[in-house]
Amino acid sequence: MDMRLENLDKQFPPEWDAGRVARAKTVFFKELALAAHRFYGGKIQILPRAPLPGFQWFNAWYTPGVSAVSTTIRDDHDASFDLSWRGNVVAVVSDSTRVLGDGDVSPPGGLGVMEGKAFLMKMLGGVDAVPICLDSRNAVGRHDPEILVDCVRRLAPSFGAINLEDISQPNCFRVLDALREDCGIPVWHDDAQGTGCVTLAGLLNALKVTGRQLAASRLVFFGAGASNTTIARLILLAGADPARIALFDSHGGLHAGRQDIASDPRFYRKWELCQATNPDRLDNIAEALRGADVLIALSRPGPDVIRPEWVRGMAQDAIVFACANPVPEIYPHAAKAAGARVVATGRGDFPNQVNNSLGFPGILKGALLVRARKITDAMAIAAAQTIAAFAERQGLTEDHIMPLMTDEAVFAETAAAVAAQAVADGVARRPMSPARILEQAGRDIAEAHAALELLVASGRIPPPPEDMIQRCLQSAIAAG
Amino acid sequence: MDMRLENLDKQFPPEWDAGRVARAKTVFFKELALAAHRFYGGKIQILPRAPLPGFQWFNAWYTPGVSAVSTTIRDDHDASFDLSWRGNVVAVVSDSTRVLGDGDVSPPGGLGVMEGKAFLMKMLGGVDAVPICLDSRNAVGRHDPEILVDCVRRLAPSFGAINLEDISQPNCFRVLDALREDCGIPVWHDDAQGTGCVTLAGLLNALKVTGRQLAASRLVFFGAGASNTTIARLILLAGADPARIALFDSHGGLHAGRQDIASDPRFYRKWELCQATNPDRLDNIAEALRGADVLIALSRPGPDVIRPEWVRGMAQDAIVFACANPVPEIYPHAAKAAGARVVATGRGDFPNQVNNSLGFPGILKGALLVRARKITDAMAIAAAQTIAAFAERQGLTEDHIMPLMTDEAVFAETAAAVAAQAVADGVARRPMSPARILEQAGRDIAEAHAALELLVASGRIPPPPEDMIQRCLQSAIAAG
Repeated sequence: MDMRLENLDKQFPPEWDAGRVARAKTVFFKELALAAHRFYGGKIQILPRAPLPGFQWFNAWYTPGVSAVSTTIRDDHDASFDLSWRGNVVAVVSDSTRVLGDGDVSPPGGLGVMEGKAFLMKMLGGVDAVPICLDSRNAVGRHDPEILVDCVRRLAPSFGAINLEDISQPNCFRVLDALREDCGIPVWHDDAQGTGCVTLAGLLNALKVTGRQLAASRLVFFGAGASNTTIARLILLAGADPARIALFDSHGGLHAGRQDIASDPRFYRKWELCQATNPDRLDNIAEALRGADVLIALSRPGPDVIRPEWVRGMAQDAIVFACANPVPEIYPHAAKAAGARVVATGRGDFPNQVNNSLGFPGILKGALLVRARKITDAMAIAAAQTIAAFAERQGLTEDHIMPLMTDEAVFAETAAAVAAQAVADGVARRPMSPARILEQAGRDIAEAHAALELLVASGRIPPPPEDMIQRCLQSAIAAG
Repeated sequence: MDMRLENLDKQFPPEWDAGRVARAKTVFFKELALAAHRFYGGKIQILPRAPLPGFQWFNAWYTPGVSAVSTTIRDDHDASFDLSWRGNVVAVVSDSTRVLGDGDVSPPGGLGVMEGKAFLMKMLGGVDAVPICLDSRNAVGRHDPEILVDCVRRLAPSFGAINLEDISQPNCFRVLDALREDCGIPVWHDDAQGTGCVTLAGLLNALKVTGRQLAASRLVFFGAGASNTTIARLILLAGADPARIALFDSHGGLHAGRQDIASDPRFYRKWELCQATNPDRLDNIAEALRGADVLIALSRPGPDVIRPEWVRGMAQDAIVFACANPVPEIYPHAAKAAGARVVATGRGDFPNQVNNSLGFPGILKGALLVRARKITDAMAIAAAQTIAAFAERQGLTEDHIMPLMTDEAVFAETAAAVAAQAVADGVARRPMSPARILEQAGRDIAEAHAALELLVASGRIPPPPEDMIQRCLQSAIAAG
C-alpha cells in the first residue's frame, strides 16, 4: 500500500459494502495508531529554535547572560512573550475525563489525544503546544473543577495561551468561565468554543446555499452538552432569533419550565438557554422539527438517532448537521432521502466535514501573534466568518460548505481575522496589521512543514516500516 | 568576530587586565542574551518526532485511531511511556524564587533559565524538556511549598521525570522530600542533588590527585544552603567519616548545640547534619580549617569571602572548592598562593569547573530509558563515579579533575551507569543492559545535534545577525 495511505479504500475485498469498509478502516487506524506511536515513541519532540554556533553560546542561552532575560521579565512581565518561547506556546490541558469517544481514560490516558492536538497545532497553525493531562482528583477521588482551575492559573505564567480539552460536563463550564476572564492569556475550550466556531462557519454557508437569513431561520438543537450549548450561544450572538430556537436534551425541550435544570447551579449555562429560547416550551422533538429550517445534532452516536420522518417534517431545502462521532445521528444518504438539502457531519469520508481542526490552529495563532489577553466571542465569530468566506470563494454547493484541512491558507487567514478582532476589542498587547499577521502566520506554518520534510528527507525521522502498515491492514481485513 | 565567539577574549583592548575583561564579557553575554532571545523568540520549539506522509495519517496520530492509545494507557498506565512522548520528556519546574544569581524574579521571570535548561537537556542528553515556571503564591502572596508539591503531583502523569530548579530554601527541601518518594517518576532537584553529584565527582578525583582516602580526610563545608547540605549528605553516603566533617553557615558551625536550627522544623535537613557531624562543636571557621584536607565553599560571591590565611592553615596539598557564582569565594590564584594544590570553581574560564550541566542530562536520560520510578542516592553516586572515572581516563592533573561540557561521550556513559544502578536498586520499570543504554543515549544525543545542524544548514534557523553580535561587543567595551 501507498505509504500516504491514500489508496486505503482499495485494499479491502471489492464485495464489501461501505459499512464494512468503514468498520475495517477504523480497526486499521487503531492498529496503526498503536504500532506507530510505539515505533516513534509518541509524535512530538523538543528541538532548538535558535542555533548553537559553538559552546560559548551557552553563556548567552544560559548562565551568565540569561540573567538579563530573568531580570527584564521580572520588571516587565509582558517581555516574557518576546524573550522566551512563551509568545508561541500553548498548553493543551485536559483532565482526561471525556476523551474523544472513550470518556474517562484516567489522567495519562489523554496523552495520545493531547499530543495529537500539539502535532496538529504545529503543522496547521505553526504553534508550539505542550500536552498536559492533569490529575484533578480530590481527596475522595472525584475530579474537582476548582483543582483544574487552580492548576491552570498556576501554569499560566509559562504559556502564551491555554487550550482546554476533553473535560466532562458540567466541570468544563465552570473551568472555562473561571479562567477566561482573569488569566491574562487566552483560555480556549476547543470542544465547546472550537466546535461552535466551525459549526457556525458551516451554518452560515448552508444558509447561503439554501437562500436563508440567519435571523429569520428556525433552528432546532438536538443534544445540549458542552458543544451544542456553546454552538447555540455563538449562533445567537451571530444574529439568530432566540424565539426561533429550541434545544433538546435527553429529558426533552429546554425551556423556562425545566425545574430540574434551574435547581442545579452547576448547569447555569444550560439554564440561561432555557430562559432565553423556546418560548412555546416545545417538548417533543418531532413537533419542534415540523417546519424547522435547521437541525443541529450533537447527541450520541447513530445511525437512527435522528429518524427520517423527523427530517421529512422539516421545511423545504432543510439543513441537517448530524455531528456525533464516530457515527452521525443519521447517515447523509438517509437525511437526503428524507428531504434534507445540505447535510454536514463530523466525518472526513462524507462531504461537509465540520471539524475543529479547521478552527483552533488559526484562532490560537492569531491570538498569540498579537499577544491577546483573551479570546472574545467576537474573535470566535470573526474566525467563523473567515472560514465560511474561504469556502465561499472556492464555490459553495450543497456538498461544499467547508474548507478542508488540506486548504493550508485558511489557517493564516483565520489568524489574521482573529488578530484584527483582538485589536478592535482592545485585548491585544501588541497590535499588528492583518497583512503582517497573514504573512507571519503563513511563514510559521510553512516553516513547520519545511522542518518536518527536512527531518524526514535526511533520515532523522525514519519512514514508517512497510511491514508495520501491512500487518495492521491484515488485522483490519481479518476483523472486517 | 567569529560567530562561534571563540575569540571573544581578543576583542577587548590589550591593556585591560583579566578582571576588566571578565566584567566586560559578562556585559557582552547579557546584552547578547537579550538581543538573541528577542531575535529568535526564545530557544526551543516543538517539532514532530514522527512523519506525516499524507493527511490520512492524522487518522492514526489523532482521531479515530488514537482512541486505541487512550484505552491502552487507561488500562495500563505504564504504556504511556511507550505510546507517547512521556518516555523521553522532563518537566523543568521552578517557582522562580531563587533564579541563578537573581533571586526571586517573579513566576515568568524564570522562563529564560528553565528554557535554557531544556535546551541543554536536548543537546547534551537527547532528552525533551518543557520549562514550567509555576505561580506558587498563596492567598497572602507567599510562596507555599505545599502548592508546589500539589501542582507537581498533578502534572506527573504527563511527564517521564521532573527536574526541580531554583526553588529557595527551605521550601526546596520540603518539596523534594514530599515528591521523591511517591510520584511514580523521578523527581530530581538539580541545585541540590545535581550540584552534589558533580561536586562529589570532582572531590573523588581531587583526592586521587593528592593521594588521599575519602574516609580518612577531614572536610569543612562553608555555606549550608540547599546545595552544600546536599553535597555533604552525598559525600557522607559515598563514605566520608561524619566525625571528620564540619559545616558552617552564616551563624557559625553546625552542631548539636545549634538550638536555632533545632527549633525550626522547616530546617530538619540541616538539623540532621548538626546531629551527625562536627562532634567537637567547632564554631570558628579558621580553627576548623586548621589541618583540614578539603574545603568546599558554596556561600556567597567573592572574592575575599575565603581568606588566604584560612587556606594557609590547611593540610599540605589542600583541596579547595570555591563554587560561588559568578565570582568564587577566593580566586584560584590566591588559593594556590596560600598553599592549595587543587582548586575548583563554578566558572568555565578557570580550570576544574564544577558544573551541573555535566550531570543532569545523562542522569535524567538514564533514568528515563529504564522508566525509573525514582532516582536513588546510589544512582546519584554512580553518576558521580562515572563522571570522575571519565576524567581519570583522560588523565588526572591538579588542573584537570573534571570532564568538559564538550566531552559529549560522558553523558551517555553517565546514563548507562545510572540506568544500571536503577536496575540494581529495583526502581526500573524496563530493565535494559548498560550497553543498550549507552548505544541508545549516544544515538539520541547525536540525533539532536544532527537535527539542529540540519535546521541551521538549510536556513530554517537563520544564523545570528553579525551586527547584533557587534553591537553587543561595543556595549561591552563601552561598559568595561
